Order: sequence, then C-alpha cells, then structure tokens
Amino acid sequence: MTLTGMNFIAGAPLPSQAGRFSTTGPLASVEEATLEHVQAAVSAAERAFAAYRRVPGPQRAALLEQIALEIEALGDEWLAVAHAETALPIAERLTGERARTVGQLRLFAGVARDGSWVDARIDRARPDRTPPRPDIRRMLIPLGPVAVFSASNFPFAFSVAGGDTASALAAGCPVVVKAHPAHPATSELTARAVIRAIEKTGMPNGLFSLLHSTRNEIAVALVQAPGIRAVGFTGSLIAGRALFDAGSARAEPIPVYAEMGSVNPLFVLPDALDARAEVIAEGLWRSVTLGVGQFCTCPGVAAAIDGPGFDRFIARLKQLVNDARPGTMLYPRIQQSFENGWRGLRAIDGVQTFQAETTGSADDSGASPTLFTTDARTFLRHDALGHEVFGPSTVVVRCASREELEQVARSLDGQLTATLHGTAADLAAHDELIAILQDKAGRLIVNGFPTGVEVCASMHHGGPYPATTDARSTSVGTAAILRFARPLAYQDFPQSSLPPELQDANAVGIWRLVDGEMSRDGF
Amino acid sequence: MTLTGMNFIAGAPLPSQAGRFSTTGPLASVEEATLEHVQAAVSAAERAFAAYRRVPGPQRAALLEQIALEIEALGDEWLAVAHAETALPIAERLTGERARTVGQLRLFAGVARDGSWVDARIDRARPDRTPPRPDIRRMLIPLGPVAVFSASNFPFAFSVAGGDTASALAAGCPVVVKAHPAHPATSELTARAVIRAIEKTGMPNGLFSLLHSTRNEIAVALVQAPGIRAVGFTGSLIAGRALFDAGSARAEPIPVYAEMGSVNPLFVLPDALDARAEVIAEGLWRSVTLGVGQFCTCPGVAAAIDGPGFDRFIARLKQLVNDARPGTMLYPRIQQSFENGWRGLRAIDGVQTFQAETTGSADDSGASPTLFTTDARTFLRHDALGHEVFGPSTVVVRCASREELEQVARSLDGQLTATLHGTAADLAAHDELIAILQDKAGRLIVNGFPTGVEVCASMHHGGPYPATTDARSTSVGTAAILRFARPLAYQDFPQSSLPPELQDANAVGIWRLVDGEMSRDGF
Repeated sequence: MTLTGMNFIAGAPLPSQAGRFSTTGPLASVEEATLEHVQAAVSAAERAFAAYRRVPGPQRAALLEQIALEIEALGDEWLAVAHAETALPIAERLTGERARTVGQLRLFAGVARDGSWVDARIDRARPDRTPPRPDIRRMLIPLGPVAVFSASNFPFAFSVAGGDTASALAAGCPVVVKAHPAHPATSELTARAVIRAIEKTGMPNGLFSLLHSTRNEIAVALVQAPGIRAVGFTGSLIAGRALFDAGSARAEPIPVYAEMGSVNPLFVLPDALDARAEVIAEGLWRSVTLGVGQFCTCPGVAAAIDGPGFDRFIARLKQLVNDARPGTMLYPRIQQSFENGWRGLRAIDGVQTFQAETTGSADDSGASPTLFTTDARTFLRHDALGHEVFGPSTVVVRCASREELEQVARSLDGQLTATLHGTAADLAAHDELIAILQDKAGRLIVNGFPTGVEVCASMHHGGPYPATTDARSTSVGTAAILRFARPLAYQDFPQSSLPPELQDANAVGIWRLVDGEMSRDGF
Repeated sequence: MTLTGMNFIAGAPLPSQAGRFSTTGPLASVEEATLEHVQAAVSAAERAFAAYRRVPGPQRAALLEQIALEIEALGDEWLAVAHAETALPIAERLTGERARTVGQLRLFAGVARDGSWVDARIDRARPDRTPPRPDIRRMLIPLGPVAVFSASNFPFAFSVAGGDTASALAAGCPVVVKAHPAHPATSELTARAVIRAIEKTGMPNGLFSLLHSTRNEIAVALVQAPGIRAVGFTGSLIAGRALFDAGSARAEPIPVYAEMGSVNPLFVLPDALDARAEVIAEGLWRSVTLGVGQFCTCPGVAAAIDGPGFDRFIARLKQLVNDARPGTMLYPRIQQSFENGWRGLRAIDGVQTFQAETTGSADDSGASPTLFTTDARTFLRHDALGHEVFGPSTVVVRCASREELEQVARSLDGQLTATLHGTAADLAAHDELIAILQDKAGRLIVNGFPTGVEVCASMHHGGPYPATTDARSTSVGTAAILRFARPLAYQDFPQSSLPPELQDANAVGIWRLVDGEMSRDGF
C-alpha cells in the first residue's frame, strides 16, 4: 500500500503547509498538522456525533467488527511496518498485540450489542403518593467527540484503533486520534482500515480523523477545542499532566483520562521467599525485561525482608543479569531517557548497580537490563528510587523488618499495580501491607507478575495519581467505555419519545434496575 | 441546647484564635477556622479512614440510620433555628426538607446495606487457555476523606448531614464539612447529632468534622489538603469553579463535584400552548416563585413560538406577577445579588420587565418576583439573558419560528434540567429540539416543572458545565455514592484475602457480573 504521511480528516487526506517531520521506517517524513487540521477534524466529529449518537448498539458493534476485519486484512504488512518503526519483534510481541487489538474491538462490539453498559434505571410513577412521584428513567449517553493520544509502546493496542478508540466508538463518540510520531506509517495503515470500515458500514465519515504532530501546541489545541468532550491518553507523566491541565483549564473543563505508568512494586513475603526465592527472581526478571521493559506495568521496584531467602533472591537475579542481552528500544529518545534514568539511580550513594559485562559493546539504541539493589533507608531517602525509569530495570529493596517493608509501601506514589508473593499465612500476617497497597494501586496481584493485562469486564487498568489522572477510570477492559458517557434522566416522557433502552417493553433486552430490582424483562 | 459557634474536630470543639464572624439567628458570632483546624480535621479523617474503610456495609447503614434518628430527636428546635437563620418557612418548606434529609440518610443506609453499588465483576481463571487466564475480580472501594461544602439554600438536605455527607459515609469515606456561614447554628445542631450517632454506633470520631469559615483561603486549603481525596460542593459558579481549579491544580489532582445551578429552560410546544397556555403559565410561575426562587432547578428561561397561545401565556403570567408578594431571601447578600441581576436584565434594550406594583414598598430583604419578556433575537444577542439570576425571576422568549426555538436552545450553556411542554405530536415534531436539549441537560422533563427533585436510583441531578464541574456525576439519588469510589482489581487472590463482596460464596448476596452474567448467587 502507498503511504502518504498525510493527515486524514473525516476519511480524506488533507495537505498541510506546516512542514514535515522525519521518521524511521517506511515513511521518510510526515506532514505536521496545523490548527486548521485540528479545527476541521473536530468540526467533522461534531457533525458526525449528531448522527452517530442515535445509531443503535448493534450497528456500532457492526462498525467495530468491520474495523477488526479490515485490520486483519492488512495482513503481514501491518506487522512489518510496525516492526520497522518500533523495533518490536514480530513473532509473539506484535502478533500477540494484533490479536489483542482485534480482540478488544470485538469485545467492545459485544458490549455495544448487549447494551447493558448504559446502566439503565427506572423508577415508575406513583401517582397515589403524597406528593405524587413522577416517572423517572435514566441511562448513560455518549459525551461527544473524544481526542485519543496514541502510545508509543503499543503501536496497535493503545494506538489508532486501540482500546481508547474502540471504547469511545462503542459508547457512541467520534474520535480524533493524534498518532504517536514514532510510528506514523503504522498509524496511517490503521487509519485507512478504520476509514474503510466506516465507509463499508455506511457510518458518517467525521467519526474518525488522524492527526500527525510533534508540536505541543497542536496537542493542546486538540484538547482545548470546544467540540472535544473527553480525552484518552497513554504516555509519560509530563505529557499526561500537561494535557490534564489543558483540559481542566478550559472554559468548559473536560475529563482527561491520562494513563502515565508507574513502578508496579512487588513485595515478596517471608514464607514465599524461603520457599521460592529463585523462581520468583526468575519471574520478576522475565517481567522486567519483557519487551525491553517497555510496559506500563513493568515492575520497577521489588522489596522483601532480609535473610537467607533474600540473599538467594539477589544471587539468582545477579545470574540472570549476567546472562541478559541488550534490547533495542522503541526509538532513540526513549533509550536516552532510560540511560539518563539509570545513570541517576546508579549515582545514589547506597545503591549497587548490576549489568551484564557485555554492556559496553551494546549498540547505540540498545538498552542493557539493569538491576539495582539498595536498603530501605536509602530507598526512603531518595524519591528517585521510587519513580518510573521506563525500560528494563528494577530496584530491589532490602528491608530490615516488616515495619520497613510497610514504610517502603507507604512511601510509594499511586500505582497501576502492586504485587504480593506469599503463602496464605504470609498474606494473613501482612494485612496492614495489603491495606496500604489497596490505597496505592488499581490492581493487586498475588503470586504473579504485573505485565500481561487481561482484557475483560473485571480488569482495572488505572490507579491513583500519578499512575493516572483519574483513579475512577480504566483504560483496559469493558469498563473503559464508562469514561466516555454521562447519565441523562427522563422525567414523565411518553414511551414514543424515550430511547428503546428505557421503554417499558425493553425490546433491546438489557439489564435494568426497575423499581430497585435488576431485570432483563420488560413490563 | 447551648450553641457554641465553635469548630468541631473529630467530635470535640477546638477553640480558635482567628477571630469570629457575626451572623443572624441564635449565634451572635462564630469562630473562624484556622489552617490548624483544617489540618487537624483532615488528619483525623485520614486516621478514621484506615478503620472505616473496612467497616461492612450494614454497619455503615446503622450509622446513617442513627444519624437520621438523632436528627429527628432534635425536634422543633432544629426547624426553629434554621428558620431564624434562613427565613425559610417552617411549615412545608423546612418540614419537607427535614423529611427529605432523613429520607436520604435512610436511602443511603439501604444502599450501603444492600452493597450491590460496588459493581462487583468476576472473571474466573481459565488455566487451560493459551496463555492461561488469571482469576480477576474487581469492585469499587472508597476514595478516602471527602470535603463537603454546604449550600445556603438547603440548610438540611445539602448541608452538614445532606446528600453529600450521606453518600460519602455510605461509600466508606470520612467527611470534613465546611458549614455555610449563613446558617452556622443549624450546622452546629446537625453536627452534634452526627457526632452523637458516631459515638453511639462506636465509629471512629475522625469520621466527621465541622469547620466554620468565611475565608477563601480556608476553603482552598481544605481542597488542597493532601489527605482530602474528593470534594462535594453546591453553590455559585464562581465559588464552585474556584474549588474545581484548586482541586485540579494540586500535585495530586482530585475530583471536585461542584453543582452550580442553571437556568433550567422550559420550552412550550405549539399544541400544548394552544390547549393549556394558562395552566402552563400558572405552573411555571409557581415553580419560579417556589421558595422565593431559591432552587438550583428554578426555571429562569421559558421559550415558545409566537401566536395567540403565546399571548394568552404572557397575559396569564402578567396577572400572576401582579398578584405576587415579595419574599424574604436567605440572607442580604443573596438578595442584593438578585437585585443586581434583575437590574442588569431590565436594562437590556428589547426586554420588558414586569413586577407587582407593591414592589416599591417591599422591605429591604424582600425580593419581588419578576417577569421579563423578550424576543429570540434579543435573547441571542445578550448572553446575560441565558445566565442564572438566583431568585424569583424568569425570562420568557417569544420565538418567530421553530428554527428560532432551536436557536435559543442551542445558545444555552449546560443545564441541570430542561423541560418540554407538549403533546405526543408536539414531541414527535420537535425531535431536533429534544436532541439539542439532550446535549445540554442532565434531566429532561415532559409536561412538568423542574423544581422538586425526586431522591431515587434513577434521578440524575447534574449536567454539563457550568451546571456542574463533572457531567458524569449526580448530587441527588443513589448514584451519588459513585462519586466517592474507584475500582480496585484483585488478581489471583486466595479466598481468605478477598473482601466478602468478591469471595465465591457471595455471602453478602450482592448483584455481581460473573463471567459475563449478572447474578446474586454464589458459586
């Protein structure tokens, strides 16, 4: 397929006079979007919203399923282009991410088709009450056009047709995607698949636009465009906070759902450490180095209480470090940032640093998996040790006591995940630690590892700030749709003017709370 | 009961060195809270949270029910004190608000006891899948200490033990209440009732504190105290926006749920106008003047298409204006603000103003119910006509056509409510108007009036900005509890470490989504 490197507004490429930025991979350079592109994309999205908000769930589902089919039809080219742009391996990594991406699209198609996500509630009139009670019915309705900012580390699943786009379209919201500048060709291929699906299903073409930009003012202009009603973002704390601030400072503030990563602490409790020190070390290291550490859920801190088990844990990690090979990161700036990060940690007094001896000979874009060890006092004195260094490294903290373990937990910022390794007896003996972690994290894991985020109804991929800007929201799993909707109540509406979800008959067959009882029946 | 005018921190009065402010009513003056009071209240709330978050729903319910009993035990003194401070009439108005307040407390007790509000979702492990699927379970957990800012116009129901406090306590969150300075004695009586209920049910005393302040820096300090995790507010746009900005600018931003009122537009469609012009005029006027217009849902704009029906509508309204008597508003500043508001509207070219002829002789704190009439062109030229003037006035807009009616609707800001009067044929013929209003409002009403907000599961008392700072939230009805909670997922937790809501047995009997199916059963 011929790639253009152009911005796509409402289904068609729109040339730019603002110059181009250069990229690696199949596109030598890409056109920078202008404020006019932003304006055109948002206006088209607003017009599309007027029609799309009324499109029934099954037709939204058909659109999402068609997008999945069009993506599958891209075949190996999609994988090859993404590999050329991101250096992510095709086997397993990109193949798996493709499966997840089409799986997500079909999952949200199911959510849209089922329709129960609208949380319908009906309280019927009681004319005989004093005062008479009116008939009140409420459901969730779509917020309006959503701006989606793609992540660099998931060129499919958190990008142009990723979870944010899928959940917004399922909710009834058009999307304007700001592509990540590290994979514009992948983004264009995906955008074309989305556009084809929109055409084939007869949906309004303003439902989707794709912007390319490396400029902060374009990102801020998109967030501050009056027609945009919500923002989804995955990326760094600095960028996410800037977009959150831009959204909050609007004349009409909007929700900005920024998922900004975390250190995903792992706590190994005493009995588990005694019984499985080496196995846990191996699992931890696999999780740290998976995808060259480029996951939001990469475990960047591990803590345990000192003793023979701890020594075995460290000894096994050191062996694994020595066997590790450098990996190529997504793009040079991310690799530099990783290097700056680990140099900072290495310089802290009381921190020991371990890397494979081959490190010196790694090529420029290679990142060497790195183990840092320290004690709890040093950890508690230096905030940097508890902050994310995006890439394949982890800080192992030797604690003198359970109290120090709890102090380490208490010192942490908000997290996407926190992990415990322990026997049932360990967990019972550490209820205070669990209570602390409940307050810190969006997901707690027992005897597993945080990488690998299941896409399902019960998944919560979020957490207190700075893991995200909105701890009430998830960017993975079916509940992600709730980010793009708000309730609307209808009082004393005649049946014919109510949406089908709220009509007596419940022809759409959704779960509803009727006079306090859950039911899928009509009445 | 002897009233002190003091701040109550964690159950006990704490003296202040920051001076006193004077009030009307039984307290001559009230102690100003200091930053130390804020700090002490928030610290106590944080300590209480550590215990209260683990308190099962039925015990939270018992606390809320005890608060309701203690409030009832205040008897007529509560009503008399509130009347002395707010000038709201005891018969019907305050008596009704008391019933609503204890009703709300018992409603949220029911929500806490039932427990299904936690939106539990379980996806069981599938060890045979490739890759194996872990066991994932999620539910909502309380956010932490909540700051509640009382409203002036509801001294009971949106005040110290009002809906914000009831829903926060039901969710598992301690509260720090900033009393409204216009009714400190009522607030102290209520606070003492809450404190007695906390003592009698053996709950931690840090669960509740009461602050008195007239100073912006104290309000901002409360919102920015790191221990505060969410804010509930009811009041003016200026104050609500300032608190929202303070919450968003924190190092760790928090949700600020500010409900800031609106003009609650009412649209009378042609057939309804022909058939019921006088009856609708009477209902509108009753709604405008109810409680001297001091409701967030007071209808401040009404629009209809010109014709004989419109003339009858205006004629009846003019008669009602002439029969109207001035009413005493909550406090002098609110009355002055109303007067400034209507003087501003009266000065607009193309606006006709109608007040009862007795107006000149009204006493100083009296507000004269006021009718403004204008045409759509004037309305569309002057933003002020579409902004809230808190008090008993309404702007009736004569439209030349359906298109002008829709233009008026489109020009409006976000609203708590929008009302349509129409026959089924009217509604069918005005689907575009309904679509516009869906985008503008939190609640749509047919053939009724917006004042009178039913407290139930399906109520949505919220709406797009500037009606609120968060269109996804409601401050009335059972869904208000969702403001103070966030999801937490548990992955591969042993049964014994899971909260009861997520254990296989479902001993608490809540509704859960288990492997995609809603059920109240265990497994």
